[in-house]
Amino acid sequence: MSSPVMALDLPPLAELSPETEAYFQKCRDKLGLVPNVLTAYAFDEAKLAGFIAMYNELMLAPSGLTKLEREMIAVAVSAVNHCFYCLAAHGAAVRTLSQDPAFGEMIAMNYRAAPLAPRQREMLDFAVKLSETPDRIGEADRTALRNAGFSDRDIWDIAATAAFFNMSNRMAAAVDMRPNDAYHALAR
Amino acid sequence: MSSPVMALDLPPLAELSPETEAYFQKCRDKLGLVPNVLTAYAFDEAKLAGFIAMYNELMLAPSGLTKLEREMIAVAVSAVNHCFYCLAAHGAAVRTLSQDPAFGEMIAMNYRAAPLAPRQREMLDFAVKLSETPDRIGEADRTALRNAGFSDRDIWDIAATAAFFNMSNRMAAAVDMRPNDAYHALAR
Amino acid sequence: MSSPVMALDLPPLAELSPETEAYFQKCRDKLGLVPNVLTAYAFDEAKLAGFIAMYNELMLAPSGLTKLEREMIAVAVSAVNHCFYCLAAHGAAVRTLSQDPAFGEMIAMNYRAAPLAPRQREMLDFAVKLSETPDRIGEADRTALRNAGFSDRDIWDIAATAAFFNMSNRMAAAVDMRPNDAYHALAR
Amino acid sequence: MSSPVMALDLPPLAELSPETEAYFQKCRDKLGLVPNVLTAYAFDEAKLAGFIAMYNELMLAPSGLTKLEREMIAVAVSAVNHCFYCLAAHGAAVRTLSQDPAFGEMIAMNYRAAPLAPRQREMLDFAVKLSETPDRIGEADRTALRNAGFSDRDIWDIAATAAFFNMSNRMAAAVDMRPNDAYHALAR
Amino acid sequence: MSSPVMALDLPPLAELSPETEAYFQKCRDKLGLVPNVLTAYAFDEAKLAGFIAMYNELMLAPSGLTKLEREMIAVAVSAVNHCFYCLAAHGAAVRTLSQDPAFGEMIAMNYRAAPLAPRQREMLDFAVKLSETPDRIGEADRTALRNAGFSDRDIWDIAATAAFFNMSNRMAAAVDMRPNDAYHALAR
Amino acid sequence: MSSPVMALDLPPLAELSPETEAYFQKCRDKLGLVPNVLTAYAFDEAKLAGFIAMYNELMLAPSGLTKLEREMIAVAVSAVNHCFYCLAAHGAAVRTLSQDPAFGEMIAMNYRAAPLAPRQREMLDFAVKLSETPDRIGEADRTALRNAGFSDRDIWDIAATAAFFNMSNRMAAAVDMRPNDAYHALAR
Repeated sequence: MSSPVMALDLPPLAELSPETEAYFQKCRDKLGLVPNVLTAYAFDEAKLAGFIAMYNELMLAPSGLTKLEREMIAVAVSAVNHCFYCLAAHGAAVRTLSQDPAFGEMIAMNYRAAPLAPRQREMLDFAVKLSETPDRIGEADRTALRNAGFSDRDIWDIAATAAFFNMSNRMAAAVDMRPNDAYHALAR
Repeated sequence: MSSPVMALDLPPLAELSPETEAYFQKCRDKLGLVPNVLTAYAFDEAKLAGFIAMYNELMLAPSGLTKLEREMIAVAVSAVNHCFYCLAAHGAAVRTLSQDPAFGEMIAMNYRAAPLAPRQREMLDFAVKLSETPDRIGEADRTALRNAGFSDRDIWDIAATAAFFNMSNRMAAAVDMRPNDAYHALAR
Repeated sequence: MSSPVMALDLPPLAELSPETEAYFQKCRDKLGLVPNVLTAYAFDEAKLAGFIAMYNELMLAPSGLTKLEREMIAVAVSAVNHCFYCLAAHGAAVRTLSQDPAFGEMIAMNYRAAPLAPRQREMLDFAVKLSETPDRIGEADRTALRNAGFSDRDIWDIAATAAFFNMSNRMAAAVDMRPNDAYHALAR
Repeated sequence: MSSPVMALDLPPLAELSPETEAYFQKCRDKLGLVPNVLTAYAFDEAKLAGFIAMYNELMLAPSGLTKLEREMIAVAVSAVNHCFYCLAAHGAAVRTLSQDPAFGEMIAMNYRAAPLAPRQREMLDFAVKLSETPDRIGEADRTALRNAGFSDRDIWDIAATAAFFNMSNRMAAAVDMRPNDAYHALAR
Repeated sequence: MSSPVMALDLPPLAELSPETEAYFQKCRDKLGLVPNVLTAYAFDEAKLAGFIAMYNELMLAPSGLTKLEREMIAVAVSAVNHCFYCLAAHGAAVRTLSQDPAFGEMIAMNYRAAPLAPRQREMLDFAVKLSETPDRIGEADRTALRNAGFSDRDIWDIAATAAFFNMSNRMAAAVDMRPNDAYHALAR
Repeated sequence: MSSPVMALDLPPLAELSPETEAYFQKCRDKLGLVPNVLTAYAFDEAKLAGFIAMYNELMLAPSGLTKLEREMIAVAVSAVNHCFYCLAAHGAAVRTLSQDPAFGEMIAMNYRAAPLAPRQREMLDFAVKLSETPDRIGEADRTALRNAGFSDRDIWDIAATAAFFNMSNRMAAAVDMRPNDAYHALAR
C-alpha cells in the first residue's frame, strides 16, 4: 500500500470494519495479497461491500460455467477495453486455473487465436459482441449459445460476467487503478 | 408480470424473502411499480440483493452529484449503448427530476444538443468518453473534471455511475429486458 | 418564432411569398404548428421550396410503403445519426401514426428492440446499413428486400427516404436546428 | 442508355415531359451527356424534378462559395462514403474547374494530402466531420468556419452541400448507380 | 527531383552506388520515371535495397496471382488507408495492366462496385478484411480463398501483398510522400 | 518444429542455403531458438532473405532510437492489431531489454497506462495514430515529434518501425502464425 493504487486522492479508511479486515486477511491467506481494487474501494465501506458481494456472487458462486470460463470472459472483455488492471489480475487467474501460461496469453491478446472448444468460442464471441456492440445482440445470439449447450441460466451468467467487467474495466480506467505487482509473475 | 420481462426463461422465485417482498412493496408505494429489472433478477435472491445494494448506493446515497446529475449520466451512457430499457426507465427519471420533458429527450437523443452548464457538460463528456473509449481516459480528463469544480470523490461517483450503466445496459441487451410500460408516459 | 430555431443568424424573410404563407397556414391547420425546419429554410424561398417539394414527394406521395413505414425509416436513420431535431419531430409522427407510444420509443432508441414484422425488420436493417456503411450495400441487400416482398420501386422509396434523412440529420446538426416544443408531448 | 444505369428495374419513362426533354438536351449541349443520375430518376417526373431543383440550387445558384469549392465538398464527402458514382462525376468536375488533375485526385483520395488554403481546409474539415460524426458538430465547429472568413450564409451552404452528398452517395450506393463512362477521361 | 518528394528533410545521397544508379536507370527506361518512393528511401542505401528487394519479390516474382491481381490488392488496400501516394501510383498500374481506366477507378474508389469474378472478389474481400480487422481473420477466411481456387501458396501471396501495402501506405502517410506527377495522366 | 508454425501448408525447404542455416544457427546461439516467423518464411529463400534484411535493418541497425524504443513501437502497434504472435515475441523483447516485466505488460495491454517519458509517449502516440488512422497523420504530428526532440531521421525510423509491424501483424494474422512457446516465460 506504499505506492498509490489509483490516481484519485481517496485513501482507504484509517480503520476498517472487522468484517472487512477479516475479508482482507482471507485474501492475504489465499492469494498472498489484497487486490488493489479492494484497496481502492476501501475509502467507503458500503461501496466496498457492494463490490465484493457482486464480484463473489459472479465469480465464485455455483454456476454452469467453470471458474476458469468466468475468468476467460473477464479477460476477453478486458482485452476489448484494453484494461491494464483487469488483464493483469484476471490474466493471472486464467494462467493459474488453466495451468497453461500460453493459453492465458492468447485470451489476453486475441482470444480468436486460442484453440477453443466450440462451446467456449461461442461463449467468448457472445461476451465480446456484448462488449463491443450491445445494441446488436439479439435472439440469434442467444440461440447460438443454446445450440452450444448453454442453459438460460448459463446465458444469464455469461452475460452478467461480461457486463460486470465492462463496468470494472471502466472503473479501473477512470481512476487509473494499478494492479498489484505480484500478478505479473504469477503462473508463468 | 403477465408478459415476460426478458427473453430468458428464468421466472421469479415463487416465494420471495420477506425482505425482498418488503422492498418490492416500497417500490410499488413510491414508484407505482416494481421495475422490471428487479423482476428479472428475482430468479435468484443473492443476485437481486447484490444489484439492489449497488444500485441504491450509487443512485440514492449521499454524493456531491445531485440525483438528477446521476440520472443524466445514466441516460447519456445508455444513449451510447442504445439501451432501450435504460433509456425508457432513466429517461423518465430525468424528465421527472428536471421537470423538463424536452431536456430529458435531449439527454436521451444527443446530450450535446442540450443547453448544459459547463460543469454538467464536462461530467457527461467524461461519462461518454469512458463508455466509448475507456482506454483513452487519462490524467487530462480527470483534470478537466477538477477544473470544472468536481472533487476526487465526485470523480469517483461520476465514474462509478457511468461504469455501472455500461454494465446494466449490457445486461438488459443480453437478455432483452423490457421496461415497464408506465415509464413511457411519465412526466411528459 | 420567438426563440431562434437554429444557431445561424439567417432570419426568415420579412415577407414570404403568398404560396409559402399558404403552405405555412396549412401546416398550422393540420399540425398546429409550422415545423421549425421550414422556418429555418425560410431565409430563402428557393431553398425552402426545394426542401418542401422533395420532402412531400418522399413522405406523402403514393408509395408501396405506408406513411408509418416511411416515418419509421426517418426515425431509425435519425437514431444512427443521433439527430435531436428529427428524433423529436419524426418520433412524434411514429407515435401518432402507430398509436403506440412505446413503439415510437423503441424505434427512436433501438429499432432492434422493437417487435417488427420481418418485412419491416428487413426495411430498417437496409436503411440503417445504408446510413452506417453505404459502401457495403450490395446486390445481396437488395435481394433480401425483394425476398421480403418489396418491389424495385419500393426499394427505391426505402433508399430515398433513408438517404434523405441522412441529409436532413446533417443539416439539423450543422446549424443546431431546434424542434418545436410541441413535439415532445405529442401522442404520449 | 444501352447498359443499365442502376440495379433496380425502373426504366425511364417512355415519354418524358417537354421540360425534362429540354433539360436533358441542355445537359447534352453543355456536358456532352445526360448524367446517369438523371436517367435513374427519370422513371418518375416528380422525383426527377425535385432532385434537379435541389441540385441546381445548391451547386449552381449564387453563393459565397465558388462552384469549385462546392464540387470539392461533393468529392471530399463522397470519399468518406466511398461513392463510386459521385467520385467519378464530381471528381471530373473538380479536375475541370481547377484545371489541375492532380488536385482533383487528391481531393478524391485524401483531401488532407492536398495543399489547401486554410479557408478551404476548414471548409472540408467541417464537411467531413459532418459526414462522419454529425452528432459531434457543435458551436466550436461553426466558430472555426467564421474565423476562417465564412459568413453564416456560407456556413449554411457548406452544410447543405455536404448534407446533400450524404444523401446522394447513399442513393447511388442503394441502387448501384453507374456513372457515365465519359467522366473517367475528362480533364486528365 | 526539383520539388521535395516528402515532408522529411532527408535528401537522397549525393552519390548513389552503381547498382542503385543502374536500377534507377532501368526504372527510367521502363517506366519513364524513378518512382518517388525510391527517391525518398535513397537517403540510405541499405533501407532502399531492402525496400526494392521485398517489393520486387512481391509484385514481380512468379506467383499464382497475375501482376494485375497483385496491383488490384495494392489499390484496394490503399483505398482502405486513403493513401494518396499508393492510389496514384498503383491506380495507374491497374489502369495500365487492365487496359480499362474505369476499372482502375472502381478499385481505387470502391472495389465492391467493380464487376469482379468471384475469385477476385474473394481475394479483395480477404485483403480488405486483413487491412481493417486483422484480428478477425480466421480459418473460415482462408477456407473461402481455398474454395475460390487459391492454393496455400496463393494465400500467402495475397496476404503478403495486402500486408506490404499496409506498411507502405503508412510509410507514405507518415512522411507525406508525393507521387510523381506523371502517374495521374497514365492510361486514362 | 514438430507442431506447425502456421495454418498454411507451406513447409520449410528440405534443404536451406548455407547462409540461411548459418543465420538460423546464430539465432539458436543468441536467442536459444529460431523465431517461428523465420520458419514460416523458410518455404522460399528469397522471401525469407527479404524479410530478414528489412527486419534487421529496422530493429538492429544504428538509429537515434534505442533498441528498446523500437521494440516498444513493435508492441504498441501489435496491441492495436491484437497480434498474438508479435505481442508474444516482442513483448518478451520489451521485458528483456527494459528488465521490467510490468512495463512490458503495460505496453502490450495499454501503453497509455505506462509511466512514459514525454519523448516516448509522443513516439508511441505517433506510432499508434499511424496504425489506426494513417490518413489523418499530418504536419502537426511530425511537429510534435520534432518538439519532443526527434530528428527527421528519427521520425523516419519511428514511422518505418510502426509501418513494418502493421505489415508483420497482418502477415501473422493471415496465416495464423504461432509464436515459439519459449517467449511466454521469458524475462518474467
